[in-house]
Amino acid sequence: MPRNAFYAQSGGVTAVINASAAGVIEAARRHRKQVGKVYAGRNGIIGALTEDLIDTGKESAAAIRALRNTPGGAFGSARYKLKGVEKGGHEYERLIEVFKAHDIGYFFYNGGDDSAHTCLKVSRIAETMGYPPVAVHVPKTVDNDLPITDTCPGFGSVAKYVATSMMEAVLDVESMAKTSTKVFILEVMGRHAGWITAATGLAQQKAGQGPHILLFPEVPWNEEASPARVEETVKQYGYCAIGASEGLQDAQGKFLSESGLKDAFGHSQLGGVAPMLANLVQSRLKLKQHWAVADYLQRAARHIASKADLEQSYAVGKAAVELAVKGMNSVMPTIVRTSSRPYRWKIGVARVADVANVEKKMPRDFITADGFHITPKCRNYLQPLIAGEAFPPFEGGLPKYVRLKNAPVKKKTGEWKP
Amino acid sequence: MPRNAFYAQSGGVTAVINASAAGVIEAARRHRKQVGKVYAGRNGIIGALTEDLIDTGKESAAAIRALRNTPGGAFGSARYKLKGVEKGGHEYERLIEVFKAHDIGYFFYNGGDDSAHTCLKVSRIAETMGYPPVAVHVPKTVDNDLPITDTCPGFGSVAKYVATSMMEAVLDVESMAKTSTKVFILEVMGRHAGWITAATGLAQQKAGQGPHILLFPEVPWNEEASPARVEETVKQYGYCAIGASEGLQDAQGKFLSESGLKDAFGHSQLGGVAPMLANLVQSRLKLKQHWAVADYLQRAARHIASKADLEQSYAVGKAAVELAVKGMNSVMPTIVRTSSRPYRWKIGVARVADVANVEKKMPRDFITADGFHITPKCRNYLQPLIAGEAFPPFEGGLPKYVRLKNAPVKKKTGEWKP
Repeated sequence: MPRNAFYAQSGGVTAVINASAAGVIEAARRHRKQVGKVYAGRNGIIGALTEDLIDTGKESAAAIRALRNTPGGAFGSARYKLKGVEKGGHEYERLIEVFKAHDIGYFFYNGGDDSAHTCLKVSRIAETMGYPPVAVHVPKTVDNDLPITDTCPGFGSVAKYVATSMMEAVLDVESMAKTSTKVFILEVMGRHAGWITAATGLAQQKAGQGPHILLFPEVPWNEEASPARVEETVKQYGYCAIGASEGLQDAQGKFLSESGLKDAFGHSQLGGVAPMLANLVQSRLKLKQHWAVADYLQRAARHIASKADLEQSYAVGKAAVELAVKGMNSVMPTIVRTSSRPYRWKIGVARVADVANVEKKMPRDFITADGFHITPKCRNYLQPLIAGEAFPPFEGGLPKYVRLKNAPVKKKTGEWKP
Repeated sequence: MPRNAFYAQSGGVTAVINASAAGVIEAARRHRKQVGKVYAGRNGIIGALTEDLIDTGKESAAAIRALRNTPGGAFGSARYKLKGVEKGGHEYERLIEVFKAHDIGYFFYNGGDDSAHTCLKVSRIAETMGYPPVAVHVPKTVDNDLPITDTCPGFGSVAKYVATSMMEAVLDVESMAKTSTKVFILEVMGRHAGWITAATGLAQQKAGQGPHILLFPEVPWNEEASPARVEETVKQYGYCAIGASEGLQDAQGKFLSESGLKDAFGHSQLGGVAPMLANLVQSRLKLKQHWAVADYLQRAARHIASKADLEQSYAVGKAAVELAVKGMNSVMPTIVRTSSRPYRWKIGVARVADVANVEKKMPRDFITADGFHITPKCRNYLQPLIAGEAFPPFEGGLPKYVRLKNAPVKKKTGEWKP
């Protein structure tokens, strides 16, 4: 008898996480003998706790196909860590209760490091409770910081967006530097790992062209050397374009974005390493500056998604189902690079236990000796990840993104009180 | 005998100003009997003052064609106002001196309001000096604030970029609002006119979807009503997405971005209405927020340019030459809308004297009665301007943008001392 599947999106969404959802759902539809219904959690794992399940079977094949073109989380995602007994909660137990009620035999959890951890724990606790579903982690994170896999689905599209945006902004700044802005700063995501910052560096195609300086979270901001480098760059090239990580830190490991801006009422000013740096450029170097903070725009930019990333995102979703129906538990499909030029990859498998709680930062040899740019080795790694375009369909001048019906599944358990 | 032409880019560049340059240069190449060389000013009008001219004749047809696909200012632009005698300068006279030396019979100035004014003055002063070149203003401004013309080349592409970006960010925020960000703010350009802010509103395709609130420079920020509206929206829809003009002002006409943020050293914090609003949302409403500042990304985003805008930008460049060879002096080609559905337009002609120093703000009936959104009339106006895609070619995952040779023209006058 086929058993049902539960799929949930976890953590920050991406331009292509829905492609993984499409991969899961379409593959499940091709394995009807083993997989019955695919239920999605409304607002991620929260939907499992509150038994707020979505019946993806109510969606047409065309709607599921359109998920490949649609950014954000089609069923809702959550930033939520299940509370175990040690934290006074019984949320894992509740999860199993809901799984039992709906005959869930497969658990697909689509997220980053945190969700790998949850996935692992669910599979362990379920086993002790005598209800072991097959749990498969579907990798996703724009931070690109999961181990073992060559890259993380979601990253390639952010990388393509920030590299394209930087390239375009550089052409703008360069053409006006004579009488206008001398220093331009683009702040990008990646609080602990500099992968996205590195990707802005791909926009530099010749020495002297921007971005001239990358500020990685892995390289501490130097109060003397870093501004001096900006000044020198402006002298040499007429302008300076900077890709800066939101997680830039000083030598003491303190985030620059938390360095004490206050509003007129004395309230602490919120985040933004770019305005912080811009302020410094203006007040200390007396140079005209401009800054941009890409924020959610970068991870939602489906319109400029990487084709390679889109295909990989779909592939890990599909592979998750194929692994699950083979009975492989507590695993994660990975991307294995078999060649950089030409770029070739295949799907591999990792044990979730080896993935959870390991953070992959930029290797030192991906960053130049002076700490301000990426090495050819890093370019060689990054370039294939942004290759190829996969424009969504457009209608009336705007991308045509799908919104699903998200029909609820009838509840079978009583109301849950956390 | 054919006479030479001088072309310069002025003010902030756009994703499609180079398409106007291509229009001028290609049209001039088709009118060889009247137009000799096309010289471009390196760094705009500065290039004329310093006699730093670029011979566009050295560029291949393919390179000029590729200008249509390339953002920024291919010859360099300038934020520079010519100093007349009243300001102790003789810069108009110097301009004429350089024009005479290079037999410049046509002056094409590609910019916004300021450059229309300059264009007018050049043509008047030249006349009094007995050296009247034909001066044609080629319209360009992302601010969309020139009068007479239905729209300004450059605006449609920014509009498409901000509407697409907002639509994507909304899908992101909406899918995570349950456990994460409740208020998202996208800051866009347009210091005095709310056209770009209005364009973010196109992302709302159904009531209840974001963006829920637009903050126009034309509508004063209300310290009580505006935050209350944000709070209500979050209560009703679970989140609130806001498109905010960098030029948002309070009831006293003071820019919110200048409302007194200070760093740890007491220095004034620079600009950014988004972080300012975010601070307020967090401290007053106690709601989790995120904010983005698109800055130059929006006006350089050739990768998501509007096809309509691209075609119009090219058309005004081409028309400028056609007007000039007919001897029409001190004019500007305009976009005349002949129908909205289906969208039809043609090129018209305005007198530069009627364009200079007139600012076209948003009509009141384009803004809803409560001041927080756009009306159907406004949508009807805006929608055709973002219609159609015109993706640039890509290579290795990034747009393929051209960089010209920009070969200098031999100087004929002595060194100029301002």
